[in-house]
Amino acid sequence: MPELRKDPILGRWVIISVERGKRPKDFSPVIHKKKGGFCPFCPGNEYTTPDEIIAFRPEGGQPNGTGWTLRVMPNKFPALESGGKITKSGEGMFDKMAGVGVHEVIIENPDHFLSLSTMPEKSVEDMLWAYFMRLTELKNDPRIKYVLIFKNEGESAGASLEHSHSQLIGLPIVPRTVRDELQGSRNHYDLKERCIFCDIIYQELSEGKRVIGENENYVALAPFAPRSPFETWILPKNHVAAFGPHQKSFRGLAEILQRVLKQFDTLLESPPYNYIIHTAPFSEEQSEYFHWHIEIMPKLTKFAGFEWGSGFYVNPTPPEEAARFMRGIF
Amino acid sequence: MPELRKDPILGRWVIISVERGKRPKDFSPVIHKKKGGFCPFCPGNEYTTPDEIIAFRPEGGQPNGTGWTLRVMPNKFPALESGGKITKSGEGMFDKMAGVGVHEVIIENPDHFLSLSTMPEKSVEDMLWAYFMRLTELKNDPRIKYVLIFKNEGESAGASLEHSHSQLIGLPIVPRTVRDELQGSRNHYDLKERCIFCDIIYQELSEGKRVIGENENYVALAPFAPRSPFETWILPKNHVAAFGPHQKSFRGLAEILQRVLKQFDTLLESPPYNYIIHTAPFSEEQSEYFHWHIEIMPKLTKFAGFEWGSGFYVNPTPPEEAARFMRGIF
Repeated sequence: MPELRKDPILGRWVIISVERGKRPKDFSPVIHKKKGGFCPFCPGNEYTTPDEIIAFRPEGGQPNGTGWTLRVMPNKFPALESGGKITKSGEGMFDKMAGVGVHEVIIENPDHFLSLSTMPEKSVEDMLWAYFMRLTELKNDPRIKYVLIFKNEGESAGASLEHSHSQLIGLPIVPRTVRDELQGSRNHYDLKERCIFCDIIYQELSEGKRVIGENENYVALAPFAPRSPFETWILPKNHVAAFGPHQKSFRGLAEILQRVLKQFDTLLESPPYNYIIHTAPFSEEQSEYFHWHIEIMPKLTKFAGFEWGSGFYVNPTPPEEAARFMRGIF
Repeated sequence: MPELRKDPILGRWVIISVERGKRPKDFSPVIHKKKGGFCPFCPGNEYTTPDEIIAFRPEGGQPNGTGWTLRVMPNKFPALESGGKITKSGEGMFDKMAGVGVHEVIIENPDHFLSLSTMPEKSVEDMLWAYFMRLTELKNDPRIKYVLIFKNEGESAGASLEHSHSQLIGLPIVPRTVRDELQGSRNHYDLKERCIFCDIIYQELSEGKRVIGENENYVALAPFAPRSPFETWILPKNHVAAFGPHQKSFRGLAEILQRVLKQFDTLLESPPYNYIIHTAPFSEEQSEYFHWHIEIMPKLTKFAGFEWGSGFYVNPTPPEEAARFMRGIF
């Protein structure tokens, strides 16, 4: 008998095939071997991209020249535009708004053929610093209400260029998914005076069966009601609402994030994946009820009519099994 | 400048690239030419599927034998199982439920190589009757709270078999997407004492720019805030909350549905697509505020990190342009 499980934060239901759960070898993700060829993100081609916003050049060098180890610039084909004012208007019964916002790209390493799982851990750490620096800077733009940081790896997960990169979109409104998560965690807080994520971490660490790994300050979990096989969440063990370093360091976070991605590569043959940083909106960075975290989903299943119509997800791999594989116990 | 648009029912925002909108030829959907080979849905192979629930055999014939023009049977690999009671339980702070429900397949025509757009209109009409008959029958099962009817056409839209078929899933709870839609339309009704869908139809028919086509009783629209290029909604012009025939006939609905799908084939080279019938739950079939409709989405864009994280959709084709192409005015 399959099992219906409810995500305690969003109230979202998933259908888990608990009996004949799919094992890693049952999936055949589209392997995204990097092909090479001309790439606007490679060193030497800086002139083909918009001017950089920040870059790390440990040996020095000119802006928009070579010598960088990490580079951030505006997206050449932005989903939103940074110039202009926010104008809101109606069209009969409908509402619209000028598409003002920022859309940036973070190139994590100059080497075209590396991915987050194979580059030096230092690059992952630098990437997290770059996320944080941009997030902090964008707080000063009164038009931006929320910054969504995410990564699409592999074409079938939505990456249009194969050179490893992350993206950041600054939005003039707090998006619905974030609002729903805030509302869900606020409801729990109102009832219990506790952070729901802290409660989840406590229960998961006590039981252990959905724990994928941990280090001193972070834990990686298979959530109770995952939307996709091998969905993984990374959370700081202590309560913090907004994304940022732990005691001025991103080392622990880089370590556990890279460990999870390396294990995906081993189990699932370098699958395409998406990850998203879920952080509190600027106005609620001190929140007692929200707890920032990263949600990572390998792209192994399709999103079709049933998911569109119901908001339900069908997941053929129970998270307890996924966690066991991710821990390396076969 | 891109435009942010809000869906008036769900409050969901989309980003529309209003300036350089993608035209039909800019998309290269994965073409899903049917390959043939052994198919469990083809006549002669009835023994490979679970026993049929209903079938249309205008010339007569034995159940589970050949001679059918339409066939409905349980899904061989169901997402939910029909035997058993609904048991709800907790696991610490988490909630779960036995995966009780029904999962059925509707084969709309015996010919392996036809699709909904190329089969006789009579097959589409019969399919709509089969949907309605199953929906009506499943009302008698007290465990089923909602029936979701949908179609995935083409592998990249989630169809695992290429022989054209629809699916029906009967669920023990009203899914979240449906609840959100009910809530949104109830809010509008509380404010205005009018159905929001009736209001949309009125505004769209007056303005005309997002109208794709109409016949006596139905209208096809490009919604104001579409999630994907060429998203199309078909609605009955008069207020009806639950899916069903118009004056005992599905002819008008079959005609307009097939017209939309044929136009997809012409403009977008037979793209993969999903459609979902949005109907009121059994308990609200007489609702004054909900209005049943079909939502059709060709699979032309990818759902990636930004969409997962925000619930926002980025749509490169404004619905006004899509409607113009769909109306055949180039």
